[in-house]
Amino acid sequence: MLEKINKPNDIHKIALADFPQLADEIRQFLIESVSQTGGHLASNLGVVELTLALHNVLDLPQDKIVWDVGHQAYTHKILTGRKEGFKNLRKEGGMSGFPKRCESDCDTFDAGHSSNSISAGLGYVRARDLLGQNYRVVSVIGDGALTGGMAYEALNNAAELKTNFIIVLNDNNMSISKNVGGMSSYLSALRTAEAYTGMKLNVTKTLKKVPKVGTAVVDTMRRTKSSIKQLIIPGMLFENMGLTYLGPVDGHNMRQMMKLFNEAKRVEGPVIVHVLTHKGRGYEPASLHPDQFHGTGPFDIKTGRQLSVKKGPTYTDVFSQAMVKLGKENPKLVGITAAMKEGTGLKAFEKAFPDRLFDVGIAEEHAVSFAAGLALGGVIPVVAIYSSFLQRAVDQMLHDVCMQKLHVIFAIDRAGLVGADGETHQGNFDLSYLTMMPNMTVMAPKNGRELEKMLEFAVHAAGPCAIRYPKGTAYQGLEEFDSPMRFGKSEVLYRGEKTALLSVGSMTEVCEQVCKELKNKGENPTFVNARFVKPLDTELLDELAKDHKLFVTVEENVRNGGFGEHVAAYMEACHPEVRVLPIAIWNRFVEHGEIASLRAKIGLSAPDILDAIEEYEEQE
Amino acid sequence: MLEKINKPNDIHKIALADFPQLADEIRQFLIESVSQTGGHLASNLGVVELTLALHNVLDLPQDKIVWDVGHQAYTHKILTGRKEGFKNLRKEGGMSGFPKRCESDCDTFDAGHSSNSISAGLGYVRARDLLGQNYRVVSVIGDGALTGGMAYEALNNAAELKTNFIIVLNDNNMSISKNVGGMSSYLSALRTAEAYTGMKLNVTKTLKKVPKVGTAVVDTMRRTKSSIKQLIIPGMLFENMGLTYLGPVDGHNMRQMMKLFNEAKRVEGPVIVHVLTHKGRGYEPASLHPDQFHGTGPFDIKTGRQLSVKKGPTYTDVFSQAMVKLGKENPKLVGITAAMKEGTGLKAFEKAFPDRLFDVGIAEEHAVSFAAGLALGGVIPVVAIYSSFLQRAVDQMLHDVCMQKLHVIFAIDRAGLVGADGETHQGNFDLSYLTMMPNMTVMAPKNGRELEKMLEFAVHAAGPCAIRYPKGTAYQGLEEFDSPMRFGKSEVLYRGEKTALLSVGSMTEVCEQVCKELKNKGENPTFVNARFVKPLDTELLDELAKDHKLFVTVEENVRNGGFGEHVAAYMEACHPEVRVLPIAIWNRFVEHGEIASLRAKIGLSAPDILDAIEEYEEQE
Repeated sequence: MLEKINKPNDIHKIALADFPQLADEIRQFLIESVSQTGGHLASNLGVVELTLALHNVLDLPQDKIVWDVGHQAYTHKILTGRKEGFKNLRKEGGMSGFPKRCESDCDTFDAGHSSNSISAGLGYVRARDLLGQNYRVVSVIGDGALTGGMAYEALNNAAELKTNFIIVLNDNNMSISKNVGGMSSYLSALRTAEAYTGMKLNVTKTLKKVPKVGTAVVDTMRRTKSSIKQLIIPGMLFENMGLTYLGPVDGHNMRQMMKLFNEAKRVEGPVIVHVLTHKGRGYEPASLHPDQFHGTGPFDIKTGRQLSVKKGPTYTDVFSQAMVKLGKENPKLVGITAAMKEGTGLKAFEKAFPDRLFDVGIAEEHAVSFAAGLALGGVIPVVAIYSSFLQRAVDQMLHDVCMQKLHVIFAIDRAGLVGADGETHQGNFDLSYLTMMPNMTVMAPKNGRELEKMLEFAVHAAGPCAIRYPKGTAYQGLEEFDSPMRFGKSEVLYRGEKTALLSVGSMTEVCEQVCKELKNKGENPTFVNARFVKPLDTELLDELAKDHKLFVTVEENVRNGGFGEHVAAYMEACHPEVRVLPIAIWNRFVEHGEIASLRAKIGLSAPDILDAIEEYEEQE
Repeated sequence: MLEKINKPNDIHKIALADFPQLADEIRQFLIESVSQTGGHLASNLGVVELTLALHNVLDLPQDKIVWDVGHQAYTHKILTGRKEGFKNLRKEGGMSGFPKRCESDCDTFDAGHSSNSISAGLGYVRARDLLGQNYRVVSVIGDGALTGGMAYEALNNAAELKTNFIIVLNDNNMSISKNVGGMSSYLSALRTAEAYTGMKLNVTKTLKKVPKVGTAVVDTMRRTKSSIKQLIIPGMLFENMGLTYLGPVDGHNMRQMMKLFNEAKRVEGPVIVHVLTHKGRGYEPASLHPDQFHGTGPFDIKTGRQLSVKKGPTYTDVFSQAMVKLGKENPKLVGITAAMKEGTGLKAFEKAFPDRLFDVGIAEEHAVSFAAGLALGGVIPVVAIYSSFLQRAVDQMLHDVCMQKLHVIFAIDRAGLVGADGETHQGNFDLSYLTMMPNMTVMAPKNGRELEKMLEFAVHAAGPCAIRYPKGTAYQGLEEFDSPMRFGKSEVLYRGEKTALLSVGSMTEVCEQVCKELKNKGENPTFVNARFVKPLDTELLDELAKDHKLFVTVEENVRNGGFGEHVAAYMEACHPEVRVLPIAIWNRFVEHGEIASLRAKIGLSAPDILDAIEEYEEQE
């Protein structure tokens, strides 16, 4: 069957009776592909039938499907002629793991972050109506993504719409891990109501005087607290907001789904189709452990075991253990995650201190202002959010935390290049958005040991502190350098002369090689681990200015607003005789690929840095 | 009565029967005060009884009230011993118009931006419970603020709480102007349901078999579309999310409110008390035109007329007219506002093109991603959001607009210092967060005429464009300089030698004076209107490097990540022989006061700039 699918709409040629077989073949293909390349598996296995059904009732690329987050678009890629791309999935130059408009005109919105698909879809809809065009727009959003506030902003706004807009709620009761919060409970109740009270679309009409019934129902509910939970009227929450609700429907039954989608197409106004899916369906290890098979490396299909050998603890592991240790020492320490307990390493903290870990859902904005409230209430919150997702909470950090100088600690994982997830997930902006914030302290560790020290330092510090650290294995080198943390003070790893390398966090490992090479060439460079990006260690800069001609700053961040610019501006003002060569990411997004290879591509590998220094020296 | 109120909890000494008189006196006091100083009026008049009732059932400062936005906290300030402060309300060194922890220990959270009070309140609650403390936490949020997604994120998270947390929904059916969206319609329906169908808390119980009724209701609703709107079960939406709902209650009836608040105190878990208030109540002009009396200057109490004389069109007026003009020329131009139709000047555009203006509610995140969708759908969206509020949408600008290089125009009003609203509203960060974004073009006009030109330029440009302009009267000077806009090109206003002043937007007006003074002193400075902050006009910088020793950059933005740093870093790399003196806001928040006076305070007035240049020259 799969051989017949080579371009958009080929699915229209498949007979309905053959769909189960096609779905099986797609699952087989996905499992085999991802077992070799790594990628997102569980989410994709869950939406095979959903995607088939959508493609069957739509006409692509005229109609638009907007995938939220986009890690569930593999079947969509197969159905739009990109089967071959899976050989090089997420490899440099290969197919992205997310929808990309440059790959196919059937991809409508480049995705990666959560909860924006309804906004984008509504934009398409409003443009369509204004231009007098006539196509379908379908936003597909998970119940996890529905914990993000902007999804609600978009629903609230969409409610005013008078023309068709289909929102598919792909409800698998999961974020990456189990979904949380009131909406999640509500959706679970809808499932249960469906199952146990037999509420169906076609139940016989038995009562006519609605207002009177309404009154009675209210009263009954008010008096019988327990009955509230029994009385879940399907979709009433959405209907109350002004959206038509259809469902719930079994997301693995194509016939039922297509019926409902066709019904949804006839609704004038926004309509939510509630589809129940099973994350990881069709592959037992993923079905049993959807969190482990959310994003996976290559694995053995038979056992589900990961093939890649772990080289040592990751920065995440180090953070995870340090949190547990510090949590034991200080009962006021609490952790906050935005639906990333596993990813951030806070699961161990939760296990040790169940009442001190808060999973707030995919809700970075709330996470940060919630932390501000916690700090004011007298505890010490550690907000652990990936660098690129923390972009969501810039205002909350600035307005609710920094303005009030609150002692909130930001543990920023996946800072700098992250590799295979690509441009939506690279954490290349945090040094810029963090250092513009008054009162914010910004740190980056050179190795795993230093991350531990910085976290301890931050717990004992005052005011807002951010620590940014990269994805992957924690560097274990340079452990002989273990000087105590002092506020705003860098660590001099080697004191030489003429040229000084000033490296930020992850780039210290790279600069160690640069330093070696320079020494091999007979130079005697100074090597500084910046530790603090804000405040700058101006005392050290002043001192180094005395016997250095060139400062080379190296950071995994865009140049605008980064460490290098701050150093350059300082030196320009105070020591114009010293030149500053800021090595950073120059004003660009960085696509997917291996981290080491991407570094080479954008000028951040050791040889690149050496070349840049040489080139600079030649100019002088 | 008001004389008896001099410190927190003095209200407990007032007899219930005397509350109406106290409320009257407070209203009188507020009207008189604000008529003299200016400030927020309508919102404060609406919550007099609500505030009295809250203070009466609580024990401050032990109990915590978290005010959302905070522009409704005047009565709270009066009740906590700050009556005298109204003489210098919003004046430099005087009392802030918003809650400030430094003013009183009864202020729990420094506010200004919208929709974060439930997050902050929940933080207090969780800290209280962890530390085994025992106090009440009440978050007061308006129905307008409830259109902001993070409020929903917080509700979703609060639903899991097992201890008391009171959320007062202050529902006046308004944002600054009329509230919008599905939630607003729902709340209106709750009001109506209350009024017309007589749904009360104590209606007789008439039906017992809840599940069966439930089924029937569902079915009836499904079949009778119109009946859905009739059947609003009070608070079901909130109850479905896991929150207890009480109300609606008349927000001007203290007895009823206090009864409900006391009931709310007994609820174990989060409880929403729905209070209906009337914005502007007790002062007819404010009651009839709450939008005009949201934030007001000094006014004549009898007529309600503004006393301050307008000096000429504001930048907002210029933008407003330019949008209408461009909208006529280009039917694809659309406008987006986040509940700020009046403030941003988009009301005229709506009047001219009713179907091309989208008010999305206080929902900056959605506004930007919605714009991304609109751009992909083939129209040209102009997103008009104040600088400090746009901080909410940094990720959406970066991830949804810049990454896809979409043609979205950002019209950023209130950039730089805004004056009386103080630190929460100053727009001093946009140049930093905008210039870190790859693909973003960033402009700032020197006067009103140039704003018009930049907007026109942006409409005809490609990719994301931001124009930032200040609050207040549009500068009408320098109109003799009117050269055509060219991408990335600055405008040389005067070509001199040795020293070059490079000014950004609003500071051009100030630098004009600096330039004059320098000429009076016999110098011959070059004067450049930067126009583009990104990309930098490096060609001009190269050229000026030939016969200048000093570049002085001047901008109303924090220094980190701003124009000055970018110029310094460029010159440092390419023309180290030229010195750069970046004049900007140094790593601080700026409190409330008159703009001119604040500029002098932070080193941005013409004499400050002159001093800085002289000091620099002396050093050389």
